[in-house]
Amino acid sequence: MSQIIDGKSLAAEIDAQTMVETEQLKQNGITPHLVVILVGEDGASQIYVRNKERRAQKLGIKSTVIKMDSDTTEKELLAKIHELNQDVDVNAILVQMPLPKQIDEFKVIMAIDPKKDADGFHPVNVGRLFENEIAQTPVACTPQGIMEMFKKYQISLDGKNAVVVGRSTIVGKPMAALLLNANATVTVVHSHTKDLKEITKKADILVVATGIAHFIKADQVKDGAVVIDVGMDRDENGKLTGDVDFEKVQEKASFITPVPKGVGPMTISMLMKQTIDLTRWSV
Amino acid sequence: MSQIIDGKSLAAEIDAQTMVETEQLKQNGITPHLVVILVGEDGASQIYVRNKERRAQKLGIKSTVIKMDSDTTEKELLAKIHELNQDVDVNAILVQMPLPKQIDEFKVIMAIDPKKDADGFHPVNVGRLFENEIAQTPVACTPQGIMEMFKKYQISLDGKNAVVVGRSTIVGKPMAALLLNANATVTVVHSHTKDLKEITKKADILVVATGIAHFIKADQVKDGAVVIDVGMDRDENGKLTGDVDFEKVQEKASFITPVPKGVGPMTISMLMKQTIDLTRWSV
Repeated sequence: MSQIIDGKSLAAEIDAQTMVETEQLKQNGITPHLVVILVGEDGASQIYVRNKERRAQKLGIKSTVIKMDSDTTEKELLAKIHELNQDVDVNAILVQMPLPKQIDEFKVIMAIDPKKDADGFHPVNVGRLFENEIAQTPVACTPQGIMEMFKKYQISLDGKNAVVVGRSTIVGKPMAALLLNANATVTVVHSHTKDLKEITKKADILVVATGIAHFIKADQVKDGAVVIDVGMDRDENGKLTGDVDFEKVQEKASFITPVPKGVGPMTISMLMKQTIDLTRWSV
Repeated sequence: MSQIIDGKSLAAEIDAQTMVETEQLKQNGITPHLVVILVGEDGASQIYVRNKERRAQKLGIKSTVIKMDSDTTEKELLAKIHELNQDVDVNAILVQMPLPKQIDEFKVIMAIDPKKDADGFHPVNVGRLFENEIAQTPVACTPQGIMEMFKKYQISLDGKNAVVVGRSTIVGKPMAALLLNANATVTVVHSHTKDLKEITKKADILVVATGIAHFIKADQVKDGAVVIDVGMDRDENGKLTGDVDFEKVQEKASFITPVPKGVGPMTISMLMKQTIDLTRWSV
């Protein structure tokens, strides 16, 4: 039986620390300011943006949401970002993805001042991460939150066999970089991988980010593995669940994250922490 | 018995193409110009720089070597790079590593205009590589040369199990990114890895960049594997050799690169090709 990693409690701890640091900055006359740009009417995006806004307000971080029409041109969005880059009152900028199809997402990511890159997706920040030169560098929030979990639960990574399932820019690739920087042996598997089970079964650390409900079953997991589930999926009854078959896998894993209350709550907390970091680094 | 990948011939083919493209640029009034900065008196670095200069001259590429004293300050070097960044006559800049210890190598890499980054080491270029957004992006020359070998010998990568031994910024990490972008399953192993043999024995594609002579023996290689040896080591008799025990491993591999005449000759050829690419992209 495994120990369940309590993402909700850890997120609350991080929030408490962020609140203290926000207050300290304010006492020095600096109000950290996160600007989130939402283009269009995507329902999920609206919820994500609202959650970020609420969390920022709760922690004392100034938050501005800029809503732009779904027919916004790329040029208009880039002009808005340029304006925010120049604005000394803005410390962190996040453009909620996905964007309407007339806009090139990578161009948008490239346009954000790397020093205000709340998501850590700008290639110069990604490059610094892969070159293990991460002083004053924002890093993707989800894998950063997972690293906090390893730290909190004293899970050692050095020399461990880590397998990352999924190779997205948001989770899989930065996760691989962070694990490699922590001296784990890292394998990235994905939709083209053959014999996936043979590889996941060797993982001491297994991070799953496929977006497919219950993609990882107990027979794909090593006894005593640490299993991190990044999924936010719906099961056949519409209930929120993860990429891992939690009920069965928890019988084999040494540590496991649940869904909900696992990785999910950490991501927003890391975004808030990163907003404070960007603010401090800019002073 | 394996097929030997002839890096020397392939490098000559690439050079021939680069020469044609250089001539075309010149006919349009553009002379590609590579500037190499050499700081200090390191013997190996002097040879590398001379080889680059000669190759450039042979292919019709304008080449300038700037020699700076070993007591050059970081500030002086950064000022020189800034000057070259501004110079419209310069298309590609390379600072020969290693640098004297008073100079922070990463700061130097960060200072080079990413659009003139001959080595492809600037984090914004590294980040683009990892985000698989490599249009008009320079990429580290050694792994790029290895990708040319795969292409030339029609070695498919999609779904293959690729293992990269070594995690340097120059070879291991960009190699991992290129293999992942080509849909291979990628594992990066390094000095902290346990059970290295168990992992290398599963590799369909094995790229070795450890700098340790004959680090990989036949019993660590799968039958039919493609083995790429990035090493440039000296054996006990001072003879140039690789990271792979070539004599024994060639009996198991399907393809193998020799040392010398394998990966080595490709690196300078890719640097010249990249100089031309940077020139074309800047027009």
